[in-house]
Order: sequence, then C-alpha cells, then structure tokens
Amino acid sequence: MPHITLPEGLPGIRGPFAFRPETAKPLSELAEVLLRGRGTLAPAERELIATYVSSQNDCHYCQTSHGAIAAHQLGENEQLVADVKRDFEQAGISEKLKALIAIAGKVQRGGKNVERADIERARQHGATDLEIHDTVLIAAAFCMYNRYVDGLATVAPQDPAGYRERAVKVARDGYLCVQRDIAASQGTGGD
Amino acid sequence: MPHITLPEGLPGIRGPFAFRPETAKPLSELAEVLLRGRGTLAPAERELIATYVSSQNDCHYCQTSHGAIAAHQLGENEQLVADVKRDFEQAGISEKLKALIAIAGKVQRGGKNVERADIERARQHGATDLEIHDTVLIAAAFCMYNRYVDGLATVAPQDPAGYRERAVKVARDGYLCVQRDIAASQGTGGD
Repeated sequence: MPHITLPEGLPGIRGPFAFRPETAKPLSELAEVLLRGRGTLAPAERELIATYVSSQNDCHYCQTSHGAIAAHQLGENEQLVADVKRDFEQAGISEKLKALIAIAGKVQRGGKNVERADIERARQHGATDLEIHDTVLIAAAFCMYNRYVDGLATVAPQDPAGYRERAVKVARDGYLCVQRDIAASQGTGGD
Repeated sequence: MPHITLPEGLPGIRGPFAFRPETAKPLSELAEVLLRGRGTLAPAERELIATYVSSQNDCHYCQTSHGAIAAHQLGENEQLVADVKRDFEQAGISEKLKALIAIAGKVQRGGKNVERADIERARQHGATDLEIHDTVLIAAAFCMYNRYVDGLATVAPQDPAGYRERAVKVARDGYLCVQRDIAASQGTGGD
C-alpha cells in the first residue's frame, strides 16, 4: 500500500504523476528528451541503460516497464534485456554500449565513482561527449525515478503482460502522451 | 577537470546546463516547482532537505549552493544549516521538519528504506500527504542532481563567497532565471 493516498488503478510512477501534475510535467519531459530526443544512441540503447540502473536499484516497476520498452524496440528480444541485467559485459551488445553501461553502473553507486579510465574506455569505442553526458544523466535520473517510485511504496504489478502492453504504446507515442493520458483520466485538462 | 568538454567559467551544474539546454529545461523546471512552487513547506525548509541529501551524497557543489540559499532564506543563518548537516535531530528546527529530513535520509540510501513508522512519525507532527510526497521527490531529485554534477566531474569552487552571492540572486529570481542567464551568456535565445 502506498505511503500516501494516491489515485487508484495507476501503478508505479503513474500514481504520483496523477497526484502532483506540476512535478509530473518536468519529470515526463526529462524522460522524453533523454530516452527519445536528439542523440546518436538508439532509443533501445538508452532504455537498456535505464533498465540496467533500475535493476541495480532493485526497482521492480522501473526495470520491468523500461525493460519491456527496450525489448519491444529490439524486436521483442526479452532475452537480451535479461542478459544485460544479469551480466552486461557478456551480453550481445556493442562494446561502446558495454562501456557506457559500465559508466552508468558507477553513477548508480555515486557520481564520484566514475574514473577517467571509464571515460577513456567509452571514447576508445567511439562514444562522444553527448553520449557520455546522456549516459551519466540517464543513470542519475533513474536513481531519482527509482527512489520516487519505491520511496512512496507505489504499486508494482507482478504480471509482465501489462508492462508489455504499455511498452508498445510508450514506444509509439512517447512519455508526454503517458502524462496526457493520466491528466485526461483524471478529468483535468493536462498542460 | 570535467570528464567531457564543458563551457568554461560555469561551475557545478551550470556547465552541463549550458552543454545540453534540452535537458537543462526540465531539470530547472523541476527545481523551481519542488523548491519554490505551490506547497506548505517554506522554501527554506525545502532547501534544507535538499542540502541535507546533498551532504549525505558528499556533493560539494550542491550542498554548498543550496546550503547558501537556505541560510539566506533563514536570515543569513549559516550555523543552522551546518547544524542540520551535522545532526538534524539535534538542530533548532521543527519536529515536523526533523521527521521529513529523516524520510529524506532514508530515500537517499534507497527508496525501499522508507518504513511506515517513518511516515507515521511525520504525520504525528502534522505532515500532509503533499509534504511527504514533496520530501520524497526532493530527496530523489537531489540523488539525481548530485550524481549528474559529480558523475561528470564538474568544477566545484571551494571559496564560499561565490555561493553566497549567487544564493541572493537565486532566492530572489528563482531557478528558471539561472537557466535563462546561461542561455543568454551562450548567445542562444533560451526557451
């Protein structure tokens, strides 16, 4: 049961989004820019970084919802998502993405853990400043989203079916649509 | 030296804000809503929560900049800010704020650490659902800002004078003005 009274029927971050639209707006915009906006990392690569960090933070809702989006974007490849979460260094992803996920893992444990050698490794595999920047911010942002979702003890369904269904919608319509859907279901005008 | 090439002369988060205006926008808006928007916690109380979390994450730039803003809002009371960072349970703040900072400290270590007893303690001292929500999100958000600032190894000046000077400006003009100042200094139009 959530620690505060949240609108019913909205699992995970969608409960607090409906509770506090003023903060939902920048939180949704940040996800949209980081995971789907301008950049040379594929959306699936960014979702894998987000999924990995969420799994390290043991956040069931975030790792399952973003893992489902990544799997969908990868052609329904749930095995690859599972491989990245279990041992990304041995997973079937590019060397550049392995180096970026390694940086994300350091950020998850605390920003000061990132060492020059981690950055050099990523650069050797072709990572740009923008890709390194976005990796650090995706990792940092999911340390926020994960704590927001679990710090309020929001509801996290165990059945993967609902996550798969929503993943198709989010991959198609984006994170701002999710926010608008909640606003519409609450009878407010959204923003 | 920062891990990526950032515009010079902009310490802390201001460097990556200038580097990536698309993410600076929602990050600034989130700070503005959480620390200065609608709510029954005084801005100084919210800044104290942000400062405490940043000190627990050992982020020099964030704890010093937000500590300076809190001190200014408290009538130039730097001693109280230092007391909260050192041992908030013994500091000269309300019992409600002590209970909320205790929740923030749990969130800093991971969202699942927040227990029903922590929430009950805050409610017994009059905390509302909105205040509990905002405390959790402020703590979560500073786990992001701190990792962003330190994960990129941004520059953090040691001299407190510059932080005090900017605190007066931010307390007066808010977080969106900071972002616009950077955009103007970069010769872009801002948003």
